[in-house]
Order: sequence, then structure tokens, then C-alpha cells
Amino acid sequence: MQRIESDSLGEVRVPAEAYWGAQTQRSIDNFPFGSMERMPLGVVHALGIIKQAAARVNRRHGLASNLAGAIEQAAAEVASGKLDDHFPLVIWQTGSGTQTNMNANEVIAGRANEMLCGERGGKSPVHPNDHVNMGQSSNDTFPTALHVAAVQALNAELVPALNKLSGALAGCAIAWKGLVKIGRTHLQDATPLTLGQEFSGYAQQLRNAHDHLRHIELHLLRLAQGGTAVGTGLNAPAGFAEEIAAEIADLTGKPFSTAPNKFEALASNDALVQLSGTLSTLAVALTKIANDIRLLASGPRSGLGELELPANEPGSSIMPGKVNPTQAEMLTMVCAQVIGNHQAVTVGGMQGHLELNVFKPMIGAAVLRSMHLLAVGMESFAKRCVEGIEPNRQRIAELVERSLMLVTALAPEIGYDNAAKIAKHAHQENLSLREAALALNLIDEPTFDRLIRPENMV
Amino acid sequence: MQRIESDSLGEVRVPAEAYWGAQTQRSIDNFPFGSMERMPLGVVHALGIIKQAAARVNRRHGLASNLAGAIEQAAAEVASGKLDDHFPLVIWQTGSGTQTNMNANEVIAGRANEMLCGERGGKSPVHPNDHVNMGQSSNDTFPTALHVAAVQALNAELVPALNKLSGALAGCAIAWKGLVKIGRTHLQDATPLTLGQEFSGYAQQLRNAHDHLRHIELHLLRLAQGGTAVGTGLNAPAGFAEEIAAEIADLTGKPFSTAPNKFEALASNDALVQLSGTLSTLAVALTKIANDIRLLASGPRSGLGELELPANEPGSSIMPGKVNPTQAEMLTMVCAQVIGNHQAVTVGGMQGHLELNVFKPMIGAAVLRSMHLLAVGMESFAKRCVEGIEPNRQRIAELVERSLMLVTALAPEIGYDNAAKIAKHAHQENLSLREAALALNLIDEPTFDRLIRPENMV
Amino acid sequence: MQRIESDSLGEVRVPAEAYWGAQTQRSIDNFPFGSMERMPLGVVHALGIIKQAAARVNRRHGLASNLAGAIEQAAAEVASGKLDDHFPLVIWQTGSGTQTNMNANEVIAGRANEMLCGERGGKSPVHPNDHVNMGQSSNDTFPTALHVAAVQALNAELVPALNKLSGALAGCAIAWKGLVKIGRTHLQDATPLTLGQEFSGYAQQLRNAHDHLRHIELHLLRLAQGGTAVGTGLNAPAGFAEEIAAEIADLTGKPFSTAPNKFEALASNDALVQLSGTLSTLAVALTKIANDIRLLASGPRSGLGELELPANEPGSSIMPGKVNPTQAEMLTMVCAQVIGNHQAVTVGGMQGHLELNVFKPMIGAAVLRSMHLLAVGMESFAKRCVEGIEPNRQRIAELVERSLMLVTALAPEIGYDNAAKIAKHAHQENLSLREAALALNLIDEPTFDRLIRPENMV
Amino acid sequence: MQRIESDSLGEVRVPAEAYWGAQTQRSIDNFPFGSMERMPLGVVHALGIIKQAAARVNRRHGLASNLAGAIEQAAAEVASGKLDDHFPLVIWQTGSGTQTNMNANEVIAGRANEMLCGERGGKSPVHPNDHVNMGQSSNDTFPTALHVAAVQALNAELVPALNKLSGALAGCAIAWKGLVKIGRTHLQDATPLTLGQEFSGYAQQLRNAHDHLRHIELHLLRLAQGGTAVGTGLNAPAGFAEEIAAEIADLTGKPFSTAPNKFEALASNDALVQLSGTLSTLAVALTKIANDIRLLASGPRSGLGELELPANEPGSSIMPGKVNPTQAEMLTMVCAQVIGNHQAVTVGGMQGHLELNVFKPMIGAAVLRSMHLLAVGMESFAKRCVEGIEPNRQRIAELVERSLMLVTALAPEIGYDNAAKIAKHAHQENLSLREAALALNLIDEPTFDRLIRPENMV
Repeated sequence: MQRIESDSLGEVRVPAEAYWGAQTQRSIDNFPFGSMERMPLGVVHALGIIKQAAARVNRRHGLASNLAGAIEQAAAEVASGKLDDHFPLVIWQTGSGTQTNMNANEVIAGRANEMLCGERGGKSPVHPNDHVNMGQSSNDTFPTALHVAAVQALNAELVPALNKLSGALAGCAIAWKGLVKIGRTHLQDATPLTLGQEFSGYAQQLRNAHDHLRHIELHLLRLAQGGTAVGTGLNAPAGFAEEIAAEIADLTGKPFSTAPNKFEALASNDALVQLSGTLSTLAVALTKIANDIRLLASGPRSGLGELELPANEPGSSIMPGKVNPTQAEMLTMVCAQVIGNHQAVTVGGMQGHLELNVFKPMIGAAVLRSMHLLAVGMESFAKRCVEGIEPNRQRIAELVERSLMLVTALAPEIGYDNAAKIAKHAHQENLSLREAALALNLIDEPTFDRLIRPENMV
Repeated sequence: MQRIESDSLGEVRVPAEAYWGAQTQRSIDNFPFGSMERMPLGVVHALGIIKQAAARVNRRHGLASNLAGAIEQAAAEVASGKLDDHFPLVIWQTGSGTQTNMNANEVIAGRANEMLCGERGGKSPVHPNDHVNMGQSSNDTFPTALHVAAVQALNAELVPALNKLSGALAGCAIAWKGLVKIGRTHLQDATPLTLGQEFSGYAQQLRNAHDHLRHIELHLLRLAQGGTAVGTGLNAPAGFAEEIAAEIADLTGKPFSTAPNKFEALASNDALVQLSGTLSTLAVALTKIANDIRLLASGPRSGLGELELPANEPGSSIMPGKVNPTQAEMLTMVCAQVIGNHQAVTVGGMQGHLELNVFKPMIGAAVLRSMHLLAVGMESFAKRCVEGIEPNRQRIAELVERSLMLVTALAPEIGYDNAAKIAKHAHQENLSLREAALALNLIDEPTFDRLIRPENMV
Repeated sequence: MQRIESDSLGEVRVPAEAYWGAQTQRSIDNFPFGSMERMPLGVVHALGIIKQAAARVNRRHGLASNLAGAIEQAAAEVASGKLDDHFPLVIWQTGSGTQTNMNANEVIAGRANEMLCGERGGKSPVHPNDHVNMGQSSNDTFPTALHVAAVQALNAELVPALNKLSGALAGCAIAWKGLVKIGRTHLQDATPLTLGQEFSGYAQQLRNAHDHLRHIELHLLRLAQGGTAVGTGLNAPAGFAEEIAAEIADLTGKPFSTAPNKFEALASNDALVQLSGTLSTLAVALTKIANDIRLLASGPRSGLGELELPANEPGSSIMPGKVNPTQAEMLTMVCAQVIGNHQAVTVGGMQGHLELNVFKPMIGAAVLRSMHLLAVGMESFAKRCVEGIEPNRQRIAELVERSLMLVTALAPEIGYDNAAKIAKHAHQENLSLREAALALNLIDEPTFDRLIRPENMV
Repeated sequence: MQRIESDSLGEVRVPAEAYWGAQTQRSIDNFPFGSMERMPLGVVHALGIIKQAAARVNRRHGLASNLAGAIEQAAAEVASGKLDDHFPLVIWQTGSGTQTNMNANEVIAGRANEMLCGERGGKSPVHPNDHVNMGQSSNDTFPTALHVAAVQALNAELVPALNKLSGALAGCAIAWKGLVKIGRTHLQDATPLTLGQEFSGYAQQLRNAHDHLRHIELHLLRLAQGGTAVGTGLNAPAGFAEEIAAEIADLTGKPFSTAPNKFEALASNDALVQLSGTLSTLAVALTKIANDIRLLASGPRSGLGELELPANEPGSSIMPGKVNPTQAEMLTMVCAQVIGNHQAVTVGGMQGHLELNVFKPMIGAAVLRSMHLLAVGMESFAKRCVEGIEPNRQRIAELVERSLMLVTALAPEIGYDNAAKIAKHAHQENLSLREAALALNLIDEPTFDRLIRPENMV
């Protein structure tokens, strides 16, 4: 069953049950990428919030109350996720996101008209452009939706997961603060530290990432809405920008405000590029952390073997009994994709032309996917890996005892050059440090025993 | 309704209607990324082909005929896409793809057991590891699946789309081979060329890309299968590698052969990295082409205005009557993502450790997504943009006539320095070249008219 | 003329006039990349500052006063650039920067010994490790040097250039705040704005970049020094970390302080990665700005032609009289390299292992090069391009008048659909908007003239 | 001492001893990046070759013989490196490389005039544009120079170094082909292989890279020269393109030919982008190889310890006797920069506009730097690391013996599930495999001893 809808190019058939109209249908036909490439729902929900806010503001500026009410109600349904099935468009469309904005305008008009008249769809009494999109352009609405969606994902998904992982690592730092182990620099044996100290570095990396995310959030809280087509605010009433930012803040509980310069807010996506860069730095940090953990857990018999990770599943289809660091593998793969997405966002972000950057759907989708991947990845890594790590204390003790780099503690007493002679002699003759030191007669026994105590070197 | 399945870690409940078993179920639970992050079906279908091929070879090496037959039949169903719903796993799992390989092993065993005994699932008479995975490891099977899937996508999707776009551009080159227009270098007016010449450059870029793709395909045709766990071929009979490559070639119609060195084929994914790099170069070329086309079509009244693109949809939610180069925007966004994906693949490809690279699912998914995006993007851009382009002949003629850079044709006659004086004089005094040349008395009229003929300058 | 120096591996010949010793000489021989790959001098000067600061602190903790004094004096010479010729090492060396740290230790010892005894070089009375490097390790010293060098370059080079360009753009925004021109979105004609508004967006982009740089500077101000070999501070006296940070702050006039977690400060370079990401975002912004300016200046006769750029040099070796936007080309090339360097830094930053990241020299060199390129590029672009831009007022007026998108101002009065009809009619029949509107009888003349006034639409 | 030179913008003072003229001097003044940013000399030498070839062709097409002879001789001096000091320009200039082309034109004219008249510089009798640049434009000359320089660097630097490293790795593969060791996948113990097999994979990676480089070389051998300003060949005589390619082939001994489409050859740099991508894949391979080697050499006492690397220098400024894998660190840093440079090249390559890509100097400089870094890096890594590696046979034997994954060899006999039970029992009870197998009564002693023989598993 189909019905006829129309736009400025003419008539189009749409499925009868769909709320959408002609422009959405054209986009479905013109961009056949398939359902795995759908525009992220976070953008759709953000558009619902924006259209709700706009109806409230437009009512104050002359939009008929019954129309405003129906729009607000229909938009709230979009925001809630109830109409997700009516947003079939993909990421790869017009670079302003106009088609997804029109998808929202059409669905909200179609649903509002159904509420008001009993018939789904159409452009009357509620018109997608004249009423739902009143005072707006895709050029200010779509970047606003991306900022709103990003701030929501940051607070609802990413930061909680970051805090969970950060907390788990900090918990390890405390639990093992006295567990002395060998340090390694250049992958070579170095002076000792505690396992807790090692994990405290990881926790610090995530605290730094959190700080950087909170800074870029301040930029994301500034909204383009009110600039309309090119930043001048043409066709929006005076005060519209400030009022709609306030309504969006009210609806979301986040301190959104209007951007200080709308030309920048339409023509550049620098805030999203910087967000993406900050996610990429987080990915860099997580790669280091996950790599370290799988390296320390390498073995069980022919690796470093200092940590034991939870066995979540059989590891191999051919090697019976094998267990692998799969959560670390998942997380590092996620990080690689996030780093790649940042490159995509960079390439898109730099290609704005004059009054508009037309890489917005790609940028938005990539950033939101990166946030989702990192959020699920960190949460899962915390829960299914970090929280279940057990140190292999016997192995850790063995390795610290046999190391030669404890010799460093002798250098202030006997000089770097003499200390080096002891280490080299021990290595060549396969002696313990103590044996080598005494054999070379470079230090006396009590001094050696006073200085070479790993527990005092951390 | 659920049933109990088991693996070496114990028992697991799976949905009664699922063909999969314990390890698939564990992966579902351990990696909760959601359905938008599913492993690409191309990989699943390739695994179906491999398992089919393996059953044929294993039958020759002693696998009971009834088991081999059932496995082959079930695997063919996987290859055909009939069992797609039974492959719920996501990209973000173990880095060897073991879980997706086990998903295939379990589904095929589960389906084969159903054929043989009437009951879905289980490990008898067909065991996922001992029979379906016989002579294989995930470590050789999964990279083989990625190569098979990539070659299939290359031939079924990417190259046809590339050829279609290349053909469309070459068609333009022929159609407009005599249409003289102004050239532009540094975005500044330069000497003339024909519109057909301009488009011939685009067609050449795509021919070069095709050549590079065909070269990397030779590398992709070499398969890891037969290396088993670490490349030595342990637990696979002699000749297994060559035989299974031949069977895969038979099933696909592509000249697959066994890789000359299995250690490389497991531990590195360099062939996929190089494929991804070649896709990235293609994206670079397409960005240039799409950017040029939208630039030449800028306007309609305040831009270059040399081309008119098809109007596929209304362009703006606020500016009535606006038409935008949406196919070019789609294509350049696709290219940005492909360039980003290459970065992800690079970061994954460089991080192999010893006998295995464990970024395989990410690498495979990113490459296959890039191929899909480019294929649909090029096909659509050819069909909905290039094939409908119309040159604005009046505008083109106007622009070439008023240009100052035709002066270049005078330089061999009067020298570079004198020719420069004419151009500068014309620019400063807002004269035509002819007026300026004669005013400066640097050339006589007949010589000027003989030399300055755009149609002779192309 | 050569002399003999030695280290723990044995004797080495060095040039007699060199202040350096055995380890520097080994590095020269082991890494033959040539003089174009030298370690940036900013790092060398920062090491001079650190060694000066260390001598002050070590004197308080027992280093003999005459040695401390000589070290401090020699280190001050390094910091001042006086001994630059004695730092021949390249970027591509050990990943901890140990060899450059030893280069500093050896040169300072060699110079101090010369001051104290009249003979250049050697290890007595001042020993490179025991005295110059006292309380330090390369592992904390080198990242400290990178932070100090980055903060210095940020304040001495980058921010002043950024402010200069930002100011030049803001000056344009003011100068042309009333100059109405056509807007363009999707490279297609849109509603008008002023040229000043357009430039105000650029200035805002740079203000945002400045804000992000100032935030990451806070992270860079935290120093690794005091962590020594693995972060524990072994062989440094209590309080060393805080004291040396204070001395460095004193010497530089910047509020450096000690990092809250030394394990993070050695094992990760996240602060530099985030700095690099922020530089990359700045490059994204600058690319947009420079691209816009050259696009608006395209022509002079067959392009947009709204701006005229200063003619700094002849543009073409074959086309006489051609002038090109060379400063924009330089700046966008610089930006491409900065974006690439960020990828290098990302790849290096993610590959730390356990207690140390060993990509430090590459990361430091790439970040410092990016800062230098951006600083010179922005300064030059401001001075040789932006400050000399002249709008072509006649051309700007022509283009705004003939545009069809002024129709947008009619939509609130007559509805989006009717307004679209007017624009399409004008386009198809090659009419002015006014002619089309009246021909279609969709609006009366006085209303049209009241609404369609570009100067009221900005 | 200065003299006066002039160009179409007027007079300029240049140093009296310089061969260059006005345009070079303007570029020095307009792009003050400093001497570390100089245009690579490979480009300068390639321009010398091109100008030599052009003089030969131009002589046949009417250039006075004495001028042609002087140009050819002066150009040969440029090609030989004798006049390097007269090429002061930096990378960051006009994006067509016009200024470096003019630098070559001016220096060659200046030197030719000196030969002909005794006075350095000037434009008579040899004029930089009319004679040295005859039949050429920067737009075809500069990309030709980049191709020539790249092919030269490929053959003179990169491929020899690649072959040296490849040969060294292949030598290891042969030397250790029977040395059985534990395999590791997911960084976890796996089934055994030989050390020679492990290294054979590395050698194969480099052979693949060599094959890809040879393919892209075919593309680089096609030259833009003859297209002149926009690809049409305006102002070049018929046959110029083919003749100059033949002369360049003659001068270099490489089979250069003219590009099939000059519009592509000017407007795109896809060949260089694809070369850069291939270098990036090589960097990916080298990162894997160098990482593996340093991981296998980790220790000496608390790491894997299977390899011992040559001790080229003391490793630490604080830890006496430490030796680090510095050649591996150098090589992986080089690889990170090459990967980053590829991103820069990609970003530049995609931004061509219409008849010209104006990111050529950046692209050329980045590609040539990548080639130089890889060449020196591979050569040094081969010589100072790989050729000196010694396996620690005792350690290797220990690790293979205690591994649990030898159990894999039992699976075909007793099934995957039973084999898994043995491995898990051994792990939990800290038993040897043999003890665990017999304890669980899942296999008899003679069968176990027959199957579990590492030397048969490789």
C-alpha cells in the first residue's frame, strides 16, 4: 500500500504506513547503501529534541498553538525513540544532513497531522518546512543535532565507561601498591617498581583523557541553531538562537548555549574535529594499557607471566585449552578504528567551503561510532578483564630477584662506570649481581646488602 | 526456548532455534556492541566456501563420507546466505576471528547434525572442531576468509562500479572533446583546453586505479589456509594447503592458490593493508573528480557555472528552489571514510605479534566496508550525476573569451617578458587582451589574430 | 685531530675540537641519516635549561660547589644556543632520547672540565653521568625536555603567529562588516551575508584553536623530571622532582610543576599526542580559511573574483602575467604535513611498552616541526596575504544582485512551496527573481520590494 | 656585494656570487622557513636532468646551438650536485613548484651566461624562461622532476637497502631452519615452529613489499613533461613529450616514457600517492619485524630472552650496563614517520583543483624523505642489528619444553575436548603435559611419546 506525497520537484509514492514524505523517499532511492549504513539514532533523537524546542519557541513567536502543540508532541516521540523505524536514511546523503533534517520534519508533520486529522502524512495542517522547520535551516539544525547527540553520548555512554575503567585500574593500583616487580624500559629489564605503581600510571592516563574530554565538551555545548541558512539568522525571529538553546538545555539538562559566532558554527566542524582528536588520544592511551596487560599476561609458560587474566572463552579452534586476552584484543581493535575515524573526520573537517561544511553526516556518524565503540569497549574491558586480573606473585618475585638492573642503586655509591662493570660481569658470567659485585671487589658485602633491596627502590 | 550446549569451559544455554553452540553464545555475551556492528556477511559467506572446500579435501584424507557430505551441504547453505541469521557475532571480538570461525563451525555442525539426526545443534555425530574445522585453525581460516571475501567484493562490486564510472567519464571525454573552455591552475585562469580533455584526465585516474587494484588482487589470491595454528601446518595432512586452495578456486571461479609462506600469511596482513592503501588512492582520485565537478557546477548564477548537474531532490529545507551537488557530497564523504579506514587498517596491520596478527576482524571489516562504500558510491555517482551532466555552452564560451592567459600563445613570438606586460596591462586597465596588445604596440594585429585562437591552443 | 674518549663499552675517537664524548660519537656512527635529520635545537636548548636547574638542585643535595657551578655555567651556554654545533645527533636514535641526553651530559661535562682544568672533554673532574646527569635518567629528562621545548615554542612562536593571523582576520571582519555579498552553501548560491561576517567566522575558528592550545598547555606544564629510570625516583633525593620543576619555572618564566604521576609521565606521551591533535585541528581550520580565500580570489576573469590578493611574485614560468595565491598554497601544504605528523605522533604515542614509550625523539621532533611550520606559515600568510587583501566591490555587488536565493526571504510570507516555484521559474526562463515572482503572480510588487533587500538579510 | 636582477614584477637585489635571479630571491624573502626546510636535493638534481634533456630536444627544434650547448652544460652541473648551494628555496612555496623550477631556470641561465659572456646571472643571451624553460611549464616540469627523483631514489637507495635487509633476514631463515622454538599467537604460547621459519615470514614480507614497489615504479616511469601549462602541450613543438622522455631515459638509464594522458599527469599526483601508500605498507611490515625482534630479545633475565642483539652503545644514562634494542627503536620511529607522511601525502593528493594539484612540493618532499628514512633505516638495521643477532639456544629449548600447547598434536588422536582437558589439568596443577595426560588416563604412554615431539611439529 502506498500513498502520494509531493515536494518542489513533484510527486513521489511512499509506503502507506510510513510517516515520512517525498524528500525522505527520494533520499532512500538516491542513496542505496543498505541498512547497515543507517544514520546513527543519536542524531535522530537529537533532532526530536531540537524540533520540540523549536515548537516551543515558535509558539511564542506566532506559530498557531494547536500546530505547535502537535509538533511538540510528535517531536517528543521522535526524541524518545518511539519512531525510530521511520528514519531509514543512511549516512551517505547530502553533506548538510538536509535529508535527515527533512526526514524529521516530514515524520513530525506526518505524525502531527495524524494526531490533528486522523490521517498519516501530508503537509497540512502541519507543513514540514513552514511549521516544523520554522525559523530553522538544515545548515544550523543538523550541526546542532550533532552537538546535542555528542554531548548526550559523552555523558550517558562514554564518561561512565571511562570512569568505570579508570576506577578499576585505580583499584588495582591500590590493591597491589606494595607488590614489588621488575620494571622494564625498552622492553629490557630495568629498576623495580610496584605493580600498583604500574597501574597507577594507567589510571592517570584516563584521568587526563577525562580532563581533555571535559574541556572539549565546553565547545560542544555551544549550538549553531539560530544561524539558519548561512549564519545570518535570516527568517528566524530576533532572540530565536538564545531561546532555543535555553529550551534544549531545559529538555536535556545540559548547559547548552548559543554559539558566539554562527558563521563559524555552520562553516566549520572544528568542535567535532577536536572531540574526535581527543577520542583518538584516549584510544592511544587505551592501546598502551591493553597492550601492557596482554604483554604482562603473556604465557602462561613461555611469556612474562606476571598477570593472569580471566578465561572468558576457549581461545583456539585447533589448540585445546588455550586461553587468549580477547578483551584486550577487542579494545585495541576498537582503538585502531577510532584512530582511523579521526582521520576520516579530519579529512572531512578540512574540506568546508565558504558558508558550509558538507561533510557533516560522515563526521557526525564517525564521531558517534567512535564514542560508542570506546564506551562499550572500556566498559567490557573493565568488567571482563581488569576486574578479574590476578597477579602471579611467585613469578613476579622470581623475575625481580634475578634482574641485573638493581645495580643502579650502587651507582651513587661507587659511580656509574664501576656499577656498569658489575652488571656486565654478571651478564657475561651468568652470575647474580651479588656474586659479580663481590668477585670484582668493587663493593663490600654489607654495603651491597644495604643498597640492593628492591623494596627500597620503588 | 533454550537448549544446553557445551565447550571446554562448560555448559551454556543457547536459543533453541539457533544452530550455533556454546562458543558463539559466549561471544554474544562477552562483546555487547549491538547489531549495527555485525561481522560483514561477506566474511561469513567466505567461511561457508572454505568449510565446503575443507570437507571435500578432508573426505579424501579420511573424514567419514556421510559426515563430509553433511558438512559440505550445510557449508553450502552458509555460503549461499541462507543461514545469515545464525551469524550474530560482531566485529569486536577475539583478534584472530576465532569466534566467527567457531560460529561457522558450530552452525555447520548444528545444521549437519540436524540433517543427519533430525536434531539441531550439538557436537555429534558432527563435531565443530574435530570435523568441520578438521585440518584447520582459525589462524589460517580467518585470513583465508578475508582474502576470499575481498576478492569476491572486488570482482562482484568494486570493479564493476569502477568501470561504470570510468566509462561514464570516458563518455564525457568523447562527447565534449571539441568543447573549448578556459583552463585553471592554482584556481586562477590559465590557458584553454577542452571539456573533453578535462574529463579524459578523470577517466585516466580511474584506469590507473584499476591497474593498481588488479596488481594487489594477485597478492590476495594467495591463501593462508594450510598453515593451521602457527604456519607449520600441524594437524593438516600433506598437500592440504594446495588441495583446499584448488577447491576454493573451483567453488569461486577465481584463481586462488596457496601462499608461498604461511608464516607471513598468518602473522601479517600486508596484502589487506596494501589493498586498503590502494582503495585510499582511489578515494584520493575520486575526491579530486567529485570536487572538480561540483566546482565547475557551482552557481547557478554566482559560481563558475560551466556544468549543470541533475536535480535529484530539493536541496534546502529553508531556501526554496535550491539544488545541490548531493551525489558529489555523498561520494566525497565516502572517500573521507575510506581514507580514515585505511588509517585504521594501517594501525591494525602494524601491530602483529610473532606468529599472529590479532587485528584481523577490524582489518577485514574496514576493508570490506570501504569496498562497499566505494562501489555503491561510484555506481550512484555515475548513474545519478555524471551521466546527467550538461555543459552550459554559453557560459563556457563567455569565460574562455575574456581570459587573459591566452597571452601565453604570444610568448614564443614576442618573449615571456613582453607577453607579461600585455597581460598586466589588460588586467590593470580592464581591457581585452587584444586591446592591450595593440595599445602597447608589442605585436601587430594580424599576428595577434593568428596566434590567439583558443581552438588552436588545446 | 682526534682525542680518545671512553664509555662502558670501551674507547672511541672523537674530533679534538668537539666537546662531546664517546656515547655521542657512537650515535653519530650508528645512525647515519645526515644533517637534515638533526634533532631540533629546541630540545637541545631545553636540555640546557634542565641541566642548569639540576645543577642548582644537586648543589643543595651535596654536589661539590665548584662542579655544580661549572655545570650550571656550561649548561647555560647550551641553553643559549652557543654550543649548537656540538649537538650533531639525529632524530632517529634510541627511542628514549638517551643519546641526546648523553650528548648534553658529555658536552656540558666537556665544557665544564675545560673551564675547570683548561682541557676540553673527558670525565673528570666533572663526569657526564655521575655529575651532570646526577639525580636524573634519560627516561625522565628527555620527556621533560620535550615539554619544556613545546611550551617555549608555543609561547614564543606559535601563539604570537596565531594571534597575528587571528587579528588580521578580525580586522577584515570589522573593515568589511557592511559589505553585502552572496553566500554560498554546497558551493551553490545561497542567501547573502557580509564579507565581514564571513571573515568573522575565520577569526572565531582561530580563537577556538587558541583556547584548545591553552588547555593542553596546562598538561604540558607538568614535568616528568624526578621519576628517574622507571618513575619511582630511584637515585634522586627526596624533593628533587618539586625542586627541579621550580628551578625550571624560574629559568623559563613559565609555571612548570612536577607531574602528579611519574609512571604516566615516562610511559606515555599523551600530552604531546593531545598537543599534536590540537595542532591538527588548527591545521583543519587553517585549511578551510586558506581554501576559502583562494576560492574567493579565483579568476581574475573566469572565477569568483570577489577578492584580490597581493601579487608577491610572478606566478608561472610559461604563462606571462599570471599571479597565484602562493601564500594560501604554502599554508595548506603546511597544514597537510601537520595533519600527517599528527598521524606519526599517534602511531608513536600508542606504542609505549610498560615503563617507557620509546618513540620520544620522533614524537618530539614531529610536534616541534609542526609548531614551527604553522607559526611561520600563519605569520607569513597574515603578513603577505591577509593584510593585503582587497575586495572587488563591483564584482561582489554584481553577484549578489543576480542571485536567486534571495527568494528565501519570501518564504515566511508566501510559503516554502510557492517561493520554490518562483526560484525555479526564474532559473528556467533566465529571469530575475522579481520578474519571475511577478510573472507567476505569487506576490505583489510592493511586498516583493519590501522583502527582497539583501542589506536587510544579513 | 649584490647585483640587480629583474622579473615581470620589477627589480630585485641578489647576492653577487649567486647564480639565481629575481624570482628565486623573491621566494627566499616570501617563505622564511629556514634551512632545515630546504627542498630535497633529489628534486634539484632531477631538474638538472630535465633541463639537460630539454636543451637537447630544443636544439633539434630551433634553439640556437650555442645557447643549447651552454644550457646543457650548466644543467649537467646542476644534475651532478655541483651547484647545490645555489638552490636555497624551501619546500613551503607555491604549490606548483614554480619557484624551484624558476630557481633551476635562473641558475642554469646565470651559469650559461657566465660561460658564454663571463658574467654571472642575467637573462641574456640565455633567458631563464624563453630558453632554459623552452617548451616547458612548471606544471609539467615539476611533477616530472618528482617522478625522476622518486625513481632514482627507489633504485639507488630504497631497493638496495630493502634487498640488504631482506637478504639478512633470509640468511637467518636458513641459518636457523632447524632450531625448534615455541610459537606464540595472541602473545600466548602456541605450537612450535623453528626460528628459521619465523624469520622466513619476515623475508617474505619484504619480498612482497619489493613486488609492490616494482609495480608502482611502472607508473612513476610515465612522465608529465610535454603537457606544459594545462596538459594540452601549448608552446611545445609536436613530439616534444616523447623526445624529452627519451632523453631523460638516456640520461638516467631508466625506461621513462611519456604519460598517456597529460591532464591526469598534471592535475593528479596519484602515482606518488600510491607510492607513498606502498611505502606505508612497507613501514607496516618493518614495524612488525622490528617489534618481534625486540620482543624476542627482551630481557636479558626477565623477558623472553630468545635472541641476543648486538650491543652498539651503552643503553642508559642512569642504569649501568643496560643495553637496548636501539636499531629496532630507530626503525620503528622511522616507520611511524613514514606512516604519518603518507597521511600528509594523501591529504595533499586529494586536494587538486581542475588542471593542477598545488601540493606538489609537500608531496614530493614527504615521499623522498620517507624513502630516505626507510633506506637508511633498513640498511642500518640490517647491518647493526639483524646480522649480529645470536639465538640463545638454551633459553629457546627451555621454553619449548615446558609449553602446554604441544597438546595440539594429540587432538587428531583423542579429540579436541579430551586434549583440552589435559592442557587445563596441566595448567591448574602445574604439571608437565606428559604428567597430566597420563594422570587423566586419556592416552597411553607410548602414543604420547610418539606424538609429542616438537621437532616433528614444525
